[in-house]
Amino acid sequence: MLEELKQEVYEANMLLPEYDLVTFTWGNVSGIDREKGLFVIKPSGVDYDKLTPEDMVVVNLDGEVVEGDLNPSSDTPTHTYLYNKFSDIQGITHTHSPWAVSFATAGVEVQAMNTTHADNFYGPVPVAPELTKAEIEEAYEENTGKVIVDTFEQRGINPMAVPAVLVEKHGPFSWGKSAKDSVVNAKVLEVVCEMNYHALMLTNRDNRVPQYLLDKHYYRKHGENAYYGQDNAKSKDHAKKA
Amino acid sequence: MLEELKQEVYEANMLLPEYDLVTFTWGNVSGIDREKGLFVIKPSGVDYDKLTPEDMVVVNLDGEVVEGDLNPSSDTPTHTYLYNKFSDIQGITHTHSPWAVSFATAGVEVQAMNTTHADNFYGPVPVAPELTKAEIEEAYEENTGKVIVDTFEQRGINPMAVPAVLVEKHGPFSWGKSAKDSVVNAKVLEVVCEMNYHALMLTNRDNRVPQYLLDKHYYRKHGENAYYGQDNAKSKDHAKKA
Amino acid sequence: MLEELKQEVYEANMLLPEYDLVTFTWGNVSGIDREKGLFVIKPSGVDYDKLTPEDMVVVNLDGEVVEGDLNPSSDTPTHTYLYNKFSDIQGITHTHSPWAVSFATAGVEVQAMNTTHADNFYGPVPVAPELTKAEIEEAYEENTGKVIVDTFEQRGINPMAVPAVLVEKHGPFSWGKSAKDSVVNAKVLEVVCEMNYHALMLTNRDNRVPQYLLDKHYYRKHGENAYYGQDNAKSKDHAKKA
Amino acid sequence: MLEELKQEVYEANMLLPEYDLVTFTWGNVSGIDREKGLFVIKPSGVDYDKLTPEDMVVVNLDGEVVEGDLNPSSDTPTHTYLYNKFSDIQGITHTHSPWAVSFATAGVEVQAMNTTHADNFYGPVPVAPELTKAEIEEAYEENTGKVIVDTFEQRGINPMAVPAVLVEKHGPFSWGKSAKDSVVNAKVLEVVCEMNYHALMLTNRDNRVPQYLLDKHYYRKHGENAYYGQDNAKSKDHAKKA
Repeated sequence: MLEELKQEVYEANMLLPEYDLVTFTWGNVSGIDREKGLFVIKPSGVDYDKLTPEDMVVVNLDGEVVEGDLNPSSDTPTHTYLYNKFSDIQGITHTHSPWAVSFATAGVEVQAMNTTHADNFYGPVPVAPELTKAEIEEAYEENTGKVIVDTFEQRGINPMAVPAVLVEKHGPFSWGKSAKDSVVNAKVLEVVCEMNYHALMLTNRDNRVPQYLLDKHYYRKHGENAYYGQDNAKSKDHAKKA
Repeated sequence: MLEELKQEVYEANMLLPEYDLVTFTWGNVSGIDREKGLFVIKPSGVDYDKLTPEDMVVVNLDGEVVEGDLNPSSDTPTHTYLYNKFSDIQGITHTHSPWAVSFATAGVEVQAMNTTHADNFYGPVPVAPELTKAEIEEAYEENTGKVIVDTFEQRGINPMAVPAVLVEKHGPFSWGKSAKDSVVNAKVLEVVCEMNYHALMLTNRDNRVPQYLLDKHYYRKHGENAYYGQDNAKSKDHAKKA
Repeated sequence: MLEELKQEVYEANMLLPEYDLVTFTWGNVSGIDREKGLFVIKPSGVDYDKLTPEDMVVVNLDGEVVEGDLNPSSDTPTHTYLYNKFSDIQGITHTHSPWAVSFATAGVEVQAMNTTHADNFYGPVPVAPELTKAEIEEAYEENTGKVIVDTFEQRGINPMAVPAVLVEKHGPFSWGKSAKDSVVNAKVLEVVCEMNYHALMLTNRDNRVPQYLLDKHYYRKHGENAYYGQDNAKSKDHAKKA
Repeated sequence: MLEELKQEVYEANMLLPEYDLVTFTWGNVSGIDREKGLFVIKPSGVDYDKLTPEDMVVVNLDGEVVEGDLNPSSDTPTHTYLYNKFSDIQGITHTHSPWAVSFATAGVEVQAMNTTHADNFYGPVPVAPELTKAEIEEAYEENTGKVIVDTFEQRGINPMAVPAVLVEKHGPFSWGKSAKDSVVNAKVLEVVCEMNYHALMLTNRDNRVPQYLLDKHYYRKHGENAYYGQDNAKSKDHAKKA
């Protein structure tokens, strides 16, 4: 069942240690088959060096395990909630990567300060607020998804344009066009946090990029006028114009 | 004698370089056989790449070497004291890992600021005070154990719930349910110190987590209602409920 | 066509991951054949572990692709502009290395604070200002070259003596006597930024080196009186005098 | 000639990249044969991955090359000066390691703040002042040795008890009982600088250790009452007493 997706999600999970994003088992990646309404996720607490594609757990959009001998990630209800509400996302990553967790701990938004940020995130990566006592005790993981979605809705942020968030005092969640893409966004967020941290220490000025620089870099890589890489429609034109 | 425990303690010691917790020989791990009242510890000053399981030294709870050609770690009296006073611990790790030593040097407690901390330590990791001149000159290593135990007793901290400490101007000690578990806790402490440091630099606010978040994350992984991983009683329920 | 230069530029590009200067594909190196008026550059968005010498793209000094199936780096117009204006440079590197980007984000010049800097850069590495809205929308990559060249001209800096720059809110560009040399300068800049950052945090004093120390270290390694290494004219004399 | 010492000095030089103490060729190690009055040193500017034991250069205590096809390190006159004045040292290391250079750049002494420091250095690692214009122009490398020796003499520091120094705006020099020992001290200094930096950022208090803690840790590892490791006279006693 979903063998190809299991392989893909397995490989995306294995990128977490390769990209230096996890300590021990503190991370998980999932990927979804939107047609079947099923997603595949890492089992809970299994070491990366023992993980196999067959260990992946299949879950439906009601959060029920459909296939798999192992328990799915304890964060599964967060993934379920996000897949239900963010209808375009195809993969989700959660880690405790140290730079992103530092910003989440401090409750400091990841402002768009440079072109590395603008290349990947079309605006600041927001902080979703701490859950209340009631939210934590009632349905912690599901409500983690809820504060994320509420944050994006209240601030009018398109989750495909800003495919990451920091949950306050917890850590980063990211998503994307595939399981792998969500891991790439987790790495970008980690690097951008590292850069922002040092820039914030170096100066007290407002470091935010102007809108036109954000537009330029974001749309250089995304959308119909993108010209970065080998696959975008305008790449050849840009090269020729150059 | 205690061949299995020697192998286990050897492997736990070898995790120190693997987890980037030691420079040169600045660390040691021990593990105990509570029934026999004997513990096994790394020999003093031996390089990790020359260490073998046979090099491990067997010591009794009076601190006497029972077996082994090599001298045990010079910190052996600290291990002896801790095993005698913390009756549930099965393994102990001491390192000079740089983030934890930085906090110990500054005398700054490792506050519970985020879920990474709460997943592993049920409350702040305390700083045991510097030893007095008399304590140092009389029986330095044993008294290092004493200030640790006194700190936990005076503050009413359960050493199994907060399995680590910083000795002021010295460094971290951690313990756990096995030799390996004590090394895992040493790594968790190092990562949490790194995260706390950057969060402290990013903001002046009080970053501490509320009690209910500490409870949620700690008991998600520990105790009879834990549901993280594959072995906890409630894991299946959590998956189903999800 | 230009097979030797392609190999050289390929190898210089592969130094970026080896020197820890890139995340994903965020970097590019080129090298020029001045006699033929052609330069060779990395293709856009291609992973380093899939890159081959044959993938390199040949571009002329009007920025037109002369040979190559792949699109050249989207930063090609910046390289073109720099090769046209800085007539002595033979190679160019652009990265998003985290220390250099942090300084670029904060708009903080890399002052000459120590002999590591003075050995390699004869004076501060300047910050070229953010592009205006018009400059970005008109011809972003070409104008990135223009603000760099303007900065060096306005401040009277010799680009061969200070072979690097930070473009504000963007990141570092460096150049040199070959493609490889430009990568070496990118690494030196990264290390110097790391050192300056920590020195700036440690003290509020003016850390800049005096002119005579800058002269001594720079000319120990560069110019006709250089005596560092095996190839400089005065190396033997220095050894003998010693 | 001196084949054993060449091998030893070669291996000590190769520890620099292994211990993450060098970028490119920015470091050199030497070792001396006191009976013959000759020392062996790395050639100038040769890459570590191309270095062989045969490349090592033999120099006498007048600083004259006695054997070797390659030019010796441009810092050779500093080594010569130190060997002449510090009569007990058997090896010398110079690097541009980033933490130590950061402290040298800021002119901040490496105070004795914790037991890691006290285990290795019996007191603060001093900063030797910047050279004057005249000192630099006359005989830069020799005068670098002179400011180091003057600093130790003026402050009454025993170079065998504190086997390292920071030369202001330049970087660290260390020495020891052998070429390898001097590299070990270079690594200790780097780690201690990293720890001190973070401790200094975490608190404004005076972090220095009291004299009795310095004494305890230093003499646990050094001198006739040392009991750390396998070779010290009192190690067995300590184990037994424990």
